[in-house]
Amino acid sequence: MTDAGKSTAKWVLVTGGAGYIGSHAVAELIESGYRCVVVDNFCNSCYEPIARLQVLTNTKIPFFKVDLMDGPALEKVFQQYNIDSVIHFAGLKAVGESTKVPLTYYHNNITGTVVLLQTMKKYGTTKLVFSSSATVYGDATRFPNMIPIPENCPTGPTNPYGKTKLLIEEILEDLHTSEPEKWRFAVLRYFNPIGAHPSGLIGEDPLGIPNNLLPYMAQVAVKRRDKLFVFGNDYDSRDGTPIRDYIHVVDLAKGHIAALKYLNVADNESGLCRAWNLGSGTGSTVLEVYKAFCKASNIVLPYDIVGRRAGDVLNLTAKPDRATEELKWKTHFKVADACSDLWKWATGNPYGYQVLGVADAFFNLPNDYESRVVALGCGSGFEISLSNVGASIVDLKVDGKSVVLGLVNECEYVNDNNPYLGATVGRYANRLRGGKFSIDGVEHQLELNEKSATVHSSSSSYHKRRFLGPLVTNPSKFKYIAKFALLDSHSQFPGDVVVNVTYEIDIKTRELEVEYEGIVQEGQMTVINLTNHSYFNLNPFQNTGYDGTEFKLFSDQVLEIDAAGCPTGRVSKSPDASKFVYTKGGVQFDTCFVTGNKGGIDTRENKLEPVIEAYHPESKLKLIVCTTEPTFQFYTKGPGFIEGYGERFGFCCEPGRFINAANIEEWKSAVTLRKGEVYGSKTLYKFN
Amino acid sequence: MTDAGKSTAKWVLVTGGAGYIGSHAVAELIESGYRCVVVDNFCNSCYEPIARLQVLTNTKIPFFKVDLMDGPALEKVFQQYNIDSVIHFAGLKAVGESTKVPLTYYHNNITGTVVLLQTMKKYGTTKLVFSSSATVYGDATRFPNMIPIPENCPTGPTNPYGKTKLLIEEILEDLHTSEPEKWRFAVLRYFNPIGAHPSGLIGEDPLGIPNNLLPYMAQVAVKRRDKLFVFGNDYDSRDGTPIRDYIHVVDLAKGHIAALKYLNVADNESGLCRAWNLGSGTGSTVLEVYKAFCKASNIVLPYDIVGRRAGDVLNLTAKPDRATEELKWKTHFKVADACSDLWKWATGNPYGYQVLGVADAFFNLPNDYESRVVALGCGSGFEISLSNVGASIVDLKVDGKSVVLGLVNECEYVNDNNPYLGATVGRYANRLRGGKFSIDGVEHQLELNEKSATVHSSSSSYHKRRFLGPLVTNPSKFKYIAKFALLDSHSQFPGDVVVNVTYEIDIKTRELEVEYEGIVQEGQMTVINLTNHSYFNLNPFQNTGYDGTEFKLFSDQVLEIDAAGCPTGRVSKSPDASKFVYTKGGVQFDTCFVTGNKGGIDTRENKLEPVIEAYHPESKLKLIVCTTEPTFQFYTKGPGFIEGYGERFGFCCEPGRFINAANIEEWKSAVTLRKGEVYGSKTLYKFN
Repeated sequence: MTDAGKSTAKWVLVTGGAGYIGSHAVAELIESGYRCVVVDNFCNSCYEPIARLQVLTNTKIPFFKVDLMDGPALEKVFQQYNIDSVIHFAGLKAVGESTKVPLTYYHNNITGTVVLLQTMKKYGTTKLVFSSSATVYGDATRFPNMIPIPENCPTGPTNPYGKTKLLIEEILEDLHTSEPEKWRFAVLRYFNPIGAHPSGLIGEDPLGIPNNLLPYMAQVAVKRRDKLFVFGNDYDSRDGTPIRDYIHVVDLAKGHIAALKYLNVADNESGLCRAWNLGSGTGSTVLEVYKAFCKASNIVLPYDIVGRRAGDVLNLTAKPDRATEELKWKTHFKVADACSDLWKWATGNPYGYQVLGVADAFFNLPNDYESRVVALGCGSGFEISLSNVGASIVDLKVDGKSVVLGLVNECEYVNDNNPYLGATVGRYANRLRGGKFSIDGVEHQLELNEKSATVHSSSSSYHKRRFLGPLVTNPSKFKYIAKFALLDSHSQFPGDVVVNVTYEIDIKTRELEVEYEGIVQEGQMTVINLTNHSYFNLNPFQNTGYDGTEFKLFSDQVLEIDAAGCPTGRVSKSPDASKFVYTKGGVQFDTCFVTGNKGGIDTRENKLEPVIEAYHPESKLKLIVCTTEPTFQFYTKGPGFIEGYGERFGFCCEPGRFINAANIEEWKSAVTLRKGEVYGSKTLYKFN
Repeated sequence: MTDAGKSTAKWVLVTGGAGYIGSHAVAELIESGYRCVVVDNFCNSCYEPIARLQVLTNTKIPFFKVDLMDGPALEKVFQQYNIDSVIHFAGLKAVGESTKVPLTYYHNNITGTVVLLQTMKKYGTTKLVFSSSATVYGDATRFPNMIPIPENCPTGPTNPYGKTKLLIEEILEDLHTSEPEKWRFAVLRYFNPIGAHPSGLIGEDPLGIPNNLLPYMAQVAVKRRDKLFVFGNDYDSRDGTPIRDYIHVVDLAKGHIAALKYLNVADNESGLCRAWNLGSGTGSTVLEVYKAFCKASNIVLPYDIVGRRAGDVLNLTAKPDRATEELKWKTHFKVADACSDLWKWATGNPYGYQVLGVADAFFNLPNDYESRVVALGCGSGFEISLSNVGASIVDLKVDGKSVVLGLVNECEYVNDNNPYLGATVGRYANRLRGGKFSIDGVEHQLELNEKSATVHSSSSSYHKRRFLGPLVTNPSKFKYIAKFALLDSHSQFPGDVVVNVTYEIDIKTRELEVEYEGIVQEGQMTVINLTNHSYFNLNPFQNTGYDGTEFKLFSDQVLEIDAAGCPTGRVSKSPDASKFVYTKGGVQFDTCFVTGNKGGIDTRENKLEPVIEAYHPESKLKLIVCTTEPTFQFYTKGPGFIEGYGERFGFCCEPGRFINAANIEEWKSAVTLRKGEVYGSKTLYKFN
């Protein structure tokens, strides 16, 4: 995980970084240790790949929705980040469309690039890797001996898209000529990028009817399209179909890292402006690719041979020798690999980044992608709204009724009077006596927020932190998973911890599972205790107390508490609370029950045991909380008087480790995390 | 004069219309009966040519300071005017500069054009004449048999400027291809434009060191540059210097009219996108042009032969046959004509449009070029500020002291309580009894603004009208001329009259001469009587009454006035007012004196006779008013209480025709203007 916080850090700006090739390049950049800022205007993409990459790489990826033609908006990015180099993917790219709306292509691609270059000039950024295309060569078969195509093949694009690419190359050349010592430009001419990220989480998500062979085949395979059309089988090739140079998008992405390295190291005394082909050097026919994809998907796709398409030529294969020699780059994956990865992407994401039943909105300011709320299961009768602010449950609706208390936007959540509504509580949930704990004999003192204890980590509390993500997936028809990540570093606690919070809902069984995972990323051993702090209310009307709720507790073992609210270390039998109806004047709980689950740093191996059952006879809603954790705090007094809610409008069940375990020898190991160890727990909320 | 008022009229939008070629095209367009709207961002031009052209052609030329890259600003123009076609000159054009700041060239030229085309598309304008360049051919000598250069010569520009021109041609082609029925594009590839408008009033005004031969020679001739450099005399030409195809800018401008006509008439069923060379077909060497210019200027310019310039080639002469055949256009002027016209421009405007001692400012809103104030003689001790609002004298300063009353901005001038301060009064100054007059037996009734008279034309009064111009010239070191024009049409008066108001100051003799000219442009015979309504105050302190001023009147003949304030037709001897000191309590005048000048519709043939002398002993300023007019109204009571001024803060001397002359048989001919006749008068204000 990279540290995104330092203002002196050098950043790579990736324009169009939410697009197909851009998002794969971002993945490779982070993999290679670069810090990336992404801008994209979403004209043919969305935020999802960025959210997914953040969680996938545990890295913050600052994102700005910027159209490159908007100079002032772009400047703000350069003002906030020290942009060392740029990889420029942003551009319209559909050949056919470009012949229909050429002005749009010229304006977007050329003006966008010129504004970008002007901004780079203004802010002293001199290195740029440009996403060009083999389209600049036009029909290379018009010359003798130009297949495979070398970089010195005469250019001659045959459509506005290709012309914009060539003109941008010329602009770069002219700019370099005007200040030859200053500018360092790498022009990468792509052949045919295919495939997807091996994770299956990012891939190509074309709008409308795909223009390219592979995405089209994938849509036929998942039955979004009827059949494949093969344009001509009367070419002079092995099987009569045209030959192209297909390159796995991950290989292509790595080519950008190679080019960036070349710009960073090659002969720093002078500038450069140079083009490299990125291709495999090996041509495949349409039918060969077809067969490879059929094999990968294990589906025999229907296809029709139809007439040749205007402008198509027999063979466009790259001569990639220059890239091999100078950039030390070559392709590693085969067409078959690309087909497998594409199939993984296509089956996992049949509608690309669009997931049915998922909606998102901004949670703070418009276009602030770091503060969002995402709803899963929309329209299903079991719907959860999650915010990356605190990785919180903002709402949970059963048959349209909210069963948790929530607030409206980030401001309300980070307000001091918010009693952790729905939030992930960490790094250390519940109390630490005296705000202290010792690690390897060294005492650590936290800020106190109770008279003689630190509760819920005080000012380091996660409920005010913006988590990365979520990475939302829909692994089967009824299941949605949203995964958040947080790099919890530079806090009052020792050690940098990566925290993963995963919510999984099953809209059929009406179950919500929350899973916590913590890993020490860097630095010292630390303490950790994570829980969720939702306030439940099963009343038909949420805006009243939850009087009348019938509770059943599956434990009668409670932690004995001293005057400071911290356990004495002794467990005692509670007065019988196994079954009771809650009333406002009746008995109130702020009590830690022992579940009988085995302790340990990772409790996920334990069975999910029921610990509490709540039922309201008017709504007929029943909630059963199950957990792998050794204790749960049962808290009936909340949430106090906050925006929209009164005293005792919700009850909490907070599974976790023993209170103050960090300071009690026999419980300590369950909250002490060493580098290499993994903290884990699971809690399940079942509604029927 | 065209009528610029109708909203249904079709307009030609001229982008870059304040530039060298653009301004000449505007002149030719108006000459050919087209209505022009001009936009320009003034990055290499100024408003002066537009102001001059308006007065030169007596035509309103709506102007907007718009950068084509600013789509919303451009749209406002399309919203206000029904743009039928566009002639697109706007663009950066210096080859050398383009190699130094290529981004600026790409951005300005390409983005500007794309935004223009997008705006045209949005507003349904489909015809465009594009200002391209022979530069798109690059070195045509690299091919055999391509001199003279035909349009089908392969292109190959060798610098960013030329590339932007070629790319715009390609954008036009692609756009035409995308909607072939719709678009009608004429691409004009200019060879070497030279010369200036035969009027000597518009011409090339390069910023900085001229890039081109002719402007450079002109600057050497007027001693702004030391000597001419000839780059190489070892070419294979008649005299060793390179051959170019020079074309008079007026011929070039006419080529645009020819192209526009072609777009308007040629085969209206389909669109087109076609290029034409605009050149003479005849090459001239550098030394031949040098000799022609020396002859025209009668100066032997010093020159040095220096080494060849990179990129220069032997011969770039146009083959203009396509334009001759299809556009029915060819050049008429020779290099010698261009040299004469250039010399006229250069000598009349040694610093181009910049005139020493002239400053201008907006008089209403910023960028509202129809309401400006222009100061002449700045810093000289005799300075006049004129506004085109009412063609008014806003200020007149003698040794830094204002001697007339003025207001701050247009709002104050058009306010109903403004008593005509400094304004041109017309169409009929002074009173018309009953607001009536008869022309050829037909009685006309004006709105009354006194109980039984119309004074100073009531609501038609010129003091609220925005005049065209001014056209400012500086014919000799001490003289400044500012000429305003007004098309006074569609008013309460019959007939459309063009009124020219010319102010001439001599900063040495401290004289201001005001000349009026009126011509019936169209329609009926009418009445006319023009004067200036300045309020003078010679006190050292202007913001007090002018008590103490010593007056001497050169006439004792006054018009006898009846109760309605109109003359009875009789002239009588006034009580002796030949010499008196003005006091607030003393005698007041609102009296029409007879000067002894001969009447007639044009009095400019008369001598300028002194009619009044005013002297203030404290300021020691003396004003002598001389006029060619038969009467003057002496008015001591003004200006009433208006912004900043009190009662009797200024006195007026308003030379003109006999009051109510239109209704008195013996005086009537001096105010009745028939088509073909010219109304004229002059008044001189001398200060010592």
